[in-house]
Amino acid sequence: MRLVVVGSSGRMGRMLIKAIAETEDCTLVGAIEHEHSPFVGQDAGALAGLPAPLGIPLSTDPLPLFANCDGVIDFTAPAATLGYAELAAQARIVHVIGTTGLTEPDFEKLRAAARHARIVQSGNMSLGVNLLAGLVKKAAATLGADFDIEILEMHHRMKVDAPSGTALLLGEAAAEGREISLKEHSVRVRDGHTGARERGSIGFATLRGGTVIGDHSVIFAGASERLELVHRAEDRGIFASGAIKAAQWAFKQKPGYYTMTDVLGL
Amino acid sequence: MRLVVVGSSGRMGRMLIKAIAETEDCTLVGAIEHEHSPFVGQDAGALAGLPAPLGIPLSTDPLPLFANCDGVIDFTAPAATLGYAELAAQARIVHVIGTTGLTEPDFEKLRAAARHARIVQSGNMSLGVNLLAGLVKKAAATLGADFDIEILEMHHRMKVDAPSGTALLLGEAAAEGREISLKEHSVRVRDGHTGARERGSIGFATLRGGTVIGDHSVIFAGASERLELVHRAEDRGIFASGAIKAAQWAFKQKPGYYTMTDVLGL
Amino acid sequence: MRLVVVGSSGRMGRMLIKAIAETEDCTLVGAIEHEHSPFVGQDAGALAGLPAPLGIPLSTDPLPLFANCDGVIDFTAPAATLGYAELAAQARIVHVIGTTGLTEPDFEKLRAAARHARIVQSGNMSLGVNLLAGLVKKAAATLGADFDIEILEMHHRMKVDAPSGTALLLGEAAAEGREISLKEHSVRVRDGHTGARERGSIGFATLRGGTVIGDHSVIFAGASERLELVHRAEDRGIFASGAIKAAQWAFKQKPGYYTMTDVLGL
Amino acid sequence: MRLVVVGSSGRMGRMLIKAIAETEDCTLVGAIEHEHSPFVGQDAGALAGLPAPLGIPLSTDPLPLFANCDGVIDFTAPAATLGYAELAAQARIVHVIGTTGLTEPDFEKLRAAARHARIVQSGNMSLGVNLLAGLVKKAAATLGADFDIEILEMHHRMKVDAPSGTALLLGEAAAEGREISLKEHSVRVRDGHTGARERGSIGFATLRGGTVIGDHSVIFAGASERLELVHRAEDRGIFASGAIKAAQWAFKQKPGYYTMTDVLGL
Repeated sequence: MRLVVVGSSGRMGRMLIKAIAETEDCTLVGAIEHEHSPFVGQDAGALAGLPAPLGIPLSTDPLPLFANCDGVIDFTAPAATLGYAELAAQARIVHVIGTTGLTEPDFEKLRAAARHARIVQSGNMSLGVNLLAGLVKKAAATLGADFDIEILEMHHRMKVDAPSGTALLLGEAAAEGREISLKEHSVRVRDGHTGARERGSIGFATLRGGTVIGDHSVIFAGASERLELVHRAEDRGIFASGAIKAAQWAFKQKPGYYTMTDVLGL
Repeated sequence: MRLVVVGSSGRMGRMLIKAIAETEDCTLVGAIEHEHSPFVGQDAGALAGLPAPLGIPLSTDPLPLFANCDGVIDFTAPAATLGYAELAAQARIVHVIGTTGLTEPDFEKLRAAARHARIVQSGNMSLGVNLLAGLVKKAAATLGADFDIEILEMHHRMKVDAPSGTALLLGEAAAEGREISLKEHSVRVRDGHTGARERGSIGFATLRGGTVIGDHSVIFAGASERLELVHRAEDRGIFASGAIKAAQWAFKQKPGYYTMTDVLGL
Repeated sequence: MRLVVVGSSGRMGRMLIKAIAETEDCTLVGAIEHEHSPFVGQDAGALAGLPAPLGIPLSTDPLPLFANCDGVIDFTAPAATLGYAELAAQARIVHVIGTTGLTEPDFEKLRAAARHARIVQSGNMSLGVNLLAGLVKKAAATLGADFDIEILEMHHRMKVDAPSGTALLLGEAAAEGREISLKEHSVRVRDGHTGARERGSIGFATLRGGTVIGDHSVIFAGASERLELVHRAEDRGIFASGAIKAAQWAFKQKPGYYTMTDVLGL
Repeated sequence: MRLVVVGSSGRMGRMLIKAIAETEDCTLVGAIEHEHSPFVGQDAGALAGLPAPLGIPLSTDPLPLFANCDGVIDFTAPAATLGYAELAAQARIVHVIGTTGLTEPDFEKLRAAARHARIVQSGNMSLGVNLLAGLVKKAAATLGADFDIEILEMHHRMKVDAPSGTALLLGEAAAEGREISLKEHSVRVRDGHTGARERGSIGFATLRGGTVIGDHSVIFAGASERLELVHRAEDRGIFASGAIKAAQWAFKQKPGYYTMTDVLGL
């Protein structure tokens, strides 16, 4: 599969270049950056810390690259992503989107593009996290409101928001399993006199410290037993390898709007 | 639902009597012990530590009790259980079996009885453990052999065998998910020079100490990410309440041979 | 050692009676309740669920009992505790205090009583928690502010305040180790845009659910490594057994004001 | 502090070069490799993946470098380490030794060299693991044999021996705290009918999978409570940064034979 990376000099871009180089049956055929980047013209392999250059300089023009590839992997920003989705639709190729901060109008445009492109979009591209979300939904549906649901996450000291997007994604999975609205049932802060826990609520708790890439736990606490479903990320490379798996999967699908749940066959 | 407890002066028997007394829509209508028990004739409620007697003396004759109840809960021994299954078949009632140590010929007889009785049998009656087994099977099937599977259990210092029956049950669930034979792929001991981990194997590790009722973890360890599915039992009462849930569920089913997986709708 | 339990019909009182009966070298010689209790006159052993009565009826008059015992164990309320401390001082006996909600003026009176009584007071009588606090202090002093400290606790769904008193006790231990003020450095809530973690702060997070007796974790998160110090309580009986250990230890000491740290020899 | 790295083209060597470059008050002044290495003559900074070369080529002659530096960091092999220790003694400098596989005769020679060199030697250079060992010793001494001790470790799938050296180091710390011999009390395998746990024993359990750098837990399991002391390594860089801390500490000490316990002031 011939792949293009956009946003290719950023942290995720470099990881993607490296991961593609290390994946059998995948070849990097293009690397794109915006025109003001100081890295334009430099070799993608060198930027990614590969032992040898790849012979692929960072370029600014997506058109020729999109026309000669099978898929694009994109961890950039919403505005850029919408543009790339349109180009992917024209080229009828795969567009894997790990961009965060997308809003409902953005999603609408992506769904429109997905009439011709094969789009896979997820707030967290790791296989493990997406499987976890599926298991959480199943457990929440099976156990019902007799089991209290709590979601705990820990991230490094530099993270500036709480709870993490992935914690919220897991909360949504739990709420779907229970067929309730997360918004109406989530408890995001506990301090001082809180009163007893409200039946059916979904609690969040946040830890920050060190260099933790991202640990998430979903706890189902019932009468005298607990089920804890935990994901630990050791390296950001899992988002790159998940995105490549998504691209490989989508390459065999019809145009459409997919998520990692589809990729995993859940 | 009118329930009878057999083996009613044992530790699980007393827990069942207490749990039934505390469950809405369930009534204890009989308590059975073998004829040599010193507790025959004593009140079931008193034995179970209830605040008031239940007016139900431990008796030795199952026939009149089975004829006038909807279900029997049984954590006894294989020989006794086979006899009760036959009586349950004659009475066409529910028979919940938490007895351990059953062999393949025993299972055959139970399946025969299940033509008329509604039998629910499981090596571990906890809702959480059985749900965990379902999630483990799903995760093993989804992740494939790129993720190494390890099963860890901790029990109290008095436990005399390892790994626990529940750890093996979880191992079976993982092996089923992967469509392999547990026997041929399990690694139960690691000490000294072991060599690198064999791809596709399922490892077991055992901790013993204190008064731990039973903790089980199934770990899926892939490249830079881990999924850990954990169950913690705080009290043996979960086996009693799971058995009662199974009885209530089976009350609405046709005669047949069921497991907790059916009860949970997995 | 001859022991008296005050508040003897409450949950902790009954646990204490049971635990004393099960401890070698200790004898219950009296059980006290306030005069309006419906349990006055009933047998302490029966109330505690012991297999046989102890021949010790709940009484309302501490004076004769304090005069003929070696120690008193007290998980009551501040006003009652202050009265008992005065009597313990007169009798020059051991007074183990697990009462919560004591204020600074209360502590002053207890310290005055401790000129003649041997008082052991702690907000959490478990050996494990108090040892944990000692280890946390040591770790905080050794690691310094390069390691971020986070304190996590989980309790059952009925608990009405957050964070737990024990979590705060552990936070105090961490702050002492670092020689900072907990009040000025604690972060008790994280939600929304929080900004990066402030160096030197001590974070708290709270989980609620099920029937969890009490789990506490103190996490030291540094660059690429984490130390996690965890305590899990399986049963409230640990507070009773810790209090009895404290009584046995204090029996051999001079009058004075002690805490569990002294009992553990930390 | 002027530092030399030996074994500088190996995985730990490159990490050390990088970590020294990123540490204030430390400068790399030399990098040594054996004469047959293909990397001799190449720039240390380039090999370590630094953004710019350091102007320090890998050389094969330690003599001039040892004469003009304050300390040497050494994660090589026993034979090489003994030679470096002699040179460090002659130069009266710091010698930090992370080499594994040292035998008792090797230790004797190191102790001889430590009459003139300031040697810090440890089987695990991470601050966290060494602090953990100190806490384990303290906890084992305080809790006594009423608490069962279990040691659990998890490492990546390529590790060929079990239990890990660090698990054994933690076991030694526990045994020292209890004043027993680890050898005589360790239980390294549990499978089948094991019988009840022997009082006073120290159990080991091993997990293998994925890319786990190294997680270690020491569990103290008593009656109804558990203390768990856990270390998680996220990156092998912690061994490099611990070694540099050790070098900085030893720079201020008299000649002698030290371990990380001394560096941490435990």
